[in-house]
Amino acid sequence: MLQIYPGIWKFTFGEPEAVTPAKLRHRAPAEDALRKLSAPKECPIPLKSIVGQWTTRGCKVAISMDEDEQIYGLGLQLSSFNQRGKKKTLRVNSDPKADLGDSHAPVPFYVSTKGYGVLVDTTRYATFYIGSTRKVGQRPAQVVVEVPHTAGVDVYIFAGPGIVKAIQRYNLFSGGGCLPARWGLGAWYRCHLQFNQKDVLRLADDFRRDRIPCDVIGLEPGWQTHSYSCSFVWSDKFPQPNELISKLLERNYHLNLWTHAFIHESSPVYAALKPFAGDYEVWEGLVPDLTMEEARRILAECYEKLHVNLGVSGYKLDECDNSDYVTAWSYPELSQFPSGLDGEQMHSLMGIQYQETVYSIFRKQNRRTYGGVRSSYALAAPYPFVLYSDLYDHKDFIRGVVNSGFSGLLWTPEVRSATSAEDLIRRLQTVVFSPQTLINAWSIRHPPWKQWDAKQNNADLFVENWGEVESACRSLLELRMRLIPYLYSAFYRYYQEGIPPFRALVIDYPSDQNVWKIDDQYMVGDRVMVAPVTANTLQREVYLPEGRWYDFWTGQKYRGGAKIDYHASIDIIPFFIKSGSLLPLATPTLHTEDPLSYQLSVNVYGDGSLPITLYEDDGKTFDYLYNQFNRLDLLWDNVRNTGVETRTGDVKCPRYTVKVWERIP
Amino acid sequence: MLQIYPGIWKFTFGEPEAVTPAKLRHRAPAEDALRKLSAPKECPIPLKSIVGQWTTRGCKVAISMDEDEQIYGLGLQLSSFNQRGKKKTLRVNSDPKADLGDSHAPVPFYVSTKGYGVLVDTTRYATFYIGSTRKVGQRPAQVVVEVPHTAGVDVYIFAGPGIVKAIQRYNLFSGGGCLPARWGLGAWYRCHLQFNQKDVLRLADDFRRDRIPCDVIGLEPGWQTHSYSCSFVWSDKFPQPNELISKLLERNYHLNLWTHAFIHESSPVYAALKPFAGDYEVWEGLVPDLTMEEARRILAECYEKLHVNLGVSGYKLDECDNSDYVTAWSYPELSQFPSGLDGEQMHSLMGIQYQETVYSIFRKQNRRTYGGVRSSYALAAPYPFVLYSDLYDHKDFIRGVVNSGFSGLLWTPEVRSATSAEDLIRRLQTVVFSPQTLINAWSIRHPPWKQWDAKQNNADLFVENWGEVESACRSLLELRMRLIPYLYSAFYRYYQEGIPPFRALVIDYPSDQNVWKIDDQYMVGDRVMVAPVTANTLQREVYLPEGRWYDFWTGQKYRGGAKIDYHASIDIIPFFIKSGSLLPLATPTLHTEDPLSYQLSVNVYGDGSLPITLYEDDGKTFDYLYNQFNRLDLLWDNVRNTGVETRTGDVKCPRYTVKVWERIP
Repeated sequence: MLQIYPGIWKFTFGEPEAVTPAKLRHRAPAEDALRKLSAPKECPIPLKSIVGQWTTRGCKVAISMDEDEQIYGLGLQLSSFNQRGKKKTLRVNSDPKADLGDSHAPVPFYVSTKGYGVLVDTTRYATFYIGSTRKVGQRPAQVVVEVPHTAGVDVYIFAGPGIVKAIQRYNLFSGGGCLPARWGLGAWYRCHLQFNQKDVLRLADDFRRDRIPCDVIGLEPGWQTHSYSCSFVWSDKFPQPNELISKLLERNYHLNLWTHAFIHESSPVYAALKPFAGDYEVWEGLVPDLTMEEARRILAECYEKLHVNLGVSGYKLDECDNSDYVTAWSYPELSQFPSGLDGEQMHSLMGIQYQETVYSIFRKQNRRTYGGVRSSYALAAPYPFVLYSDLYDHKDFIRGVVNSGFSGLLWTPEVRSATSAEDLIRRLQTVVFSPQTLINAWSIRHPPWKQWDAKQNNADLFVENWGEVESACRSLLELRMRLIPYLYSAFYRYYQEGIPPFRALVIDYPSDQNVWKIDDQYMVGDRVMVAPVTANTLQREVYLPEGRWYDFWTGQKYRGGAKIDYHASIDIIPFFIKSGSLLPLATPTLHTEDPLSYQLSVNVYGDGSLPITLYEDDGKTFDYLYNQFNRLDLLWDNVRNTGVETRTGDVKCPRYTVKVWERIP
Repeated sequence: MLQIYPGIWKFTFGEPEAVTPAKLRHRAPAEDALRKLSAPKECPIPLKSIVGQWTTRGCKVAISMDEDEQIYGLGLQLSSFNQRGKKKTLRVNSDPKADLGDSHAPVPFYVSTKGYGVLVDTTRYATFYIGSTRKVGQRPAQVVVEVPHTAGVDVYIFAGPGIVKAIQRYNLFSGGGCLPARWGLGAWYRCHLQFNQKDVLRLADDFRRDRIPCDVIGLEPGWQTHSYSCSFVWSDKFPQPNELISKLLERNYHLNLWTHAFIHESSPVYAALKPFAGDYEVWEGLVPDLTMEEARRILAECYEKLHVNLGVSGYKLDECDNSDYVTAWSYPELSQFPSGLDGEQMHSLMGIQYQETVYSIFRKQNRRTYGGVRSSYALAAPYPFVLYSDLYDHKDFIRGVVNSGFSGLLWTPEVRSATSAEDLIRRLQTVVFSPQTLINAWSIRHPPWKQWDAKQNNADLFVENWGEVESACRSLLELRMRLIPYLYSAFYRYYQEGIPPFRALVIDYPSDQNVWKIDDQYMVGDRVMVAPVTANTLQREVYLPEGRWYDFWTGQKYRGGAKIDYHASIDIIPFFIKSGSLLPLATPTLHTEDPLSYQLSVNVYGDGSLPITLYEDDGKTFDYLYNQFNRLDLLWDNVRNTGVETRTGDVKCPRYTVKVWERIP
């Protein structure tokens, strides 16, 4: 058992593989931050409680577990929350139909209510038996992890105390959380896949005219000359991409491009990448071996030259997972890649390697980005990409927000079409309280508030009361804009301390048994707890953890440690503020470039004893990595009944001003 | 490429494992029958079209495929039929939620419309890529099979011509099809799991009184002192099992016992089997290593002494699969067994080894049996066990009948409760045209025709028109009794020639593209084609293959090679008789011991040019293996307008008598 950082130990069994997430990492651990975290001296899992053994299929590691211990994580598990008693095989897959472990982003990392985390450092489709089975005659429960096709494995153990510290250590070991470009926290709108240059500009103008907040416009597959597989070349729908992007930037929109990594023979990089491709095709395209530096360089240069240099702000990295279910697409597990990886290893790593490829362009140019990705894996925290899915169950999408925080992932419960105005609004409420407020209108020509039914939408048949629906949606997007200073601050903590901005209640309250199964409420930052509502009900149960909580909408105060029945009319998403909190709210604007977006009113809940720190930087470059930011500490002076602002740092950049302090007693 | 029998070749790549279905087989190939089948000299897959290769995960075999070739099989695939374009991983599982390859009975054997079959001789969770993916630059389509954790594999190739010959060779290579005890083809009724000895006898008497045909009564878990895991010991609900069985036999009922192979510590064989058990428990019970002769012997002796010697006729071998889905139960794949097998291998073989264990008892006693089993695998044809499932989609259940014939399996679309009288009757219609006409009333105290809703049934609340529903169900069970001579004949062909009694249309008509996707019609024997109807419709499309066909119910004649729209009122299951057929129908009786069940009327369709052979034997012993049977050939003499019976053999046993020849012109 080797201690590699304070509070992090490595247990090595047998001869681990050469290809693992930790060995192929591109981003270094956030060492300084790791060393700042207080740490216990002893590994939370004693050596006698962890046993490795070879099997005929590979190897296994068994870790003892207490009878009342609860286990969470394993990546973006959309169908389940508390993993105790389950068997999960971690395979990258885009269409999991059953609760098997398949996921866009399975991560062989879990955390325990006993206050530790475990990373099994493998790209193999490992199976986790989480107290679901017992050896003959053996009574303490175990987590048993089988890692196939290997002669050994490294297991990293991350100490608490508490779940949150274990996750912090894991995220900092990963390199620290990402900090999105500030505009990335605004509203996103992906337009119809058949839109051309004119359509996009018209949409941009319509949104400003109609006062719909929007910072990012996304293009879907239609912008490429060939998209399944990809050419990466602008189609004749976009004859002057340069001009389009300038005009969008003038209007304070950022442009995001859909793409994937399977390369059509008409692509300018086809020939160059052929020697660096796997032996199986996908959609008649090459599968580049992005674990190879040369392959990443060729693809990155292509993206840089054709898009990024024109001002494209980021990408949606689609289809880097695979599907055995809906249709059998993608490369087989038995594929071979030039670097020596097989298809199983590559499925696990594809999403990360693709994120690295694209992220490296923006790092080089010192421009921050924020984008989407459909697959991820271990050690992903530093990458500013948000997971999304073609699946669409609203409850699963909420669970995605809740689960993603266990494993260094970000997830957007994107809004597409809906079954009713109510469904649309409920889904929009959830996505407003998520890492990326994304409306994905890829299949509809008009915004969903005009018509949520795709067929009618495309026939220009709007619902009668669309004005009302639009107005409800506008209010929600405005709420998002108001929350950006608070969210940006939460992301700064993700970067600096590894604390995930969106968290299951059990992360903050691990010893409260009432939260062990709550998968439909979550913390946003440290002060806000949200309980989304799905369509077809106006009532839901909300559990308030210990302490006192304020209803954001009514200011009503509740005693925690209890359930309440909450009536949420259609325009209300229940969310609660911890007593003592200072909650900064920006003036709602149409985009984040508007200086008014730095003008704050601060709600002071209860005695205002919980100060908050905001961060100011250029919002666009990586200069924050070199301390080019200001801290703005907001305090409430209860004696003088006044707010106090203390700024540390003197970076030249837009600055917050507090216009109003509002007390909610 | 080694020819091992006429029309069967073995391709060996690398060093195959020691544990494979072919190497662990207990039943010898039906050599004489194999040698009787005419065979091509050349292997239908030339050596250059099959390539083996090692992968980092094991090995793979690639077999070229024509562009228009269609592939079927891979065992009991409930969710799909034509496998072309699919990726399937063959894992034994009881709750497949997606079309992944998971199945109670996956079989690494497939057949092609080009007229050959391929068995990949492995117990590993092999993945079949059936033209679903292509290598870079490679244009002919391929079936690629990856076999993990192996350094080589044997592939057996079974020649046609046609699909049916390939399947025949596979079934004969397996040992030939099973021949059920004749009573096994009657009606089955499994009673409520809480029933005691008196309840069972009362039910038996009620059925006779109410003129409900029934040959077999099944007990569910409640008969054991401990059932999850199992003790195998009669509980105090059955104080005199001896007496119960005698009384049932007097009334011409056979008793079948539910059981499974996970052994509770209270079982008399627990201690003896402990040294022969795997290292992981299931339901706190041992998992016996039934690949070991000693383990089979101990378990078989226990069953023989406690049940078979008392007159028990057979078993329902439950839970010999496993489930990752609904609940994570069963032993892990990483388990180790004393024989050296791991859990993956054992999952594949458990069902077969368990069938062998139980079958051996009856073979030794020279008593035929027929039972149920929830898991099976390759080379299963000789075992007289019928697969069933807790899943319950009627269309999937029909597809199960259609698919099972490709891979040497039998499947019953058992009837449990229902959502309506219509649903009940439609399901019963299907199960009448299946290998085992099973009503599984494990959860209801009264027959489903009195009340299909389980909750109301157990509250003694019957539906108003239950008499009508009972009458409809009685008629269907009588139809089953009428078909027994015909079905018994079809099973004789399964035994003698390997022709499955229930077959997809593509087996009989492989070059007719219209049947390549038909998964809801099937052949029963050589003369009957059935097209079941599911609830909520009275209309369905029926495709009639080439030739002419008669509607059984109306005698209406149709020209084949065309679709018809068929109106099937609730009491009608559409089935069609091939023109020229002689269809023998027994006098409907309450059980197969009734001598009237040998009294036939023979329908003569069209010119009566297709004679049929019936078989007579004791129906109860294995003496048929030593030619202790008579053949009764039925011909129609068109000139003299009369039927002709020709008996070959002079075995003393019940004999058929034809009372009526009925012409349907």
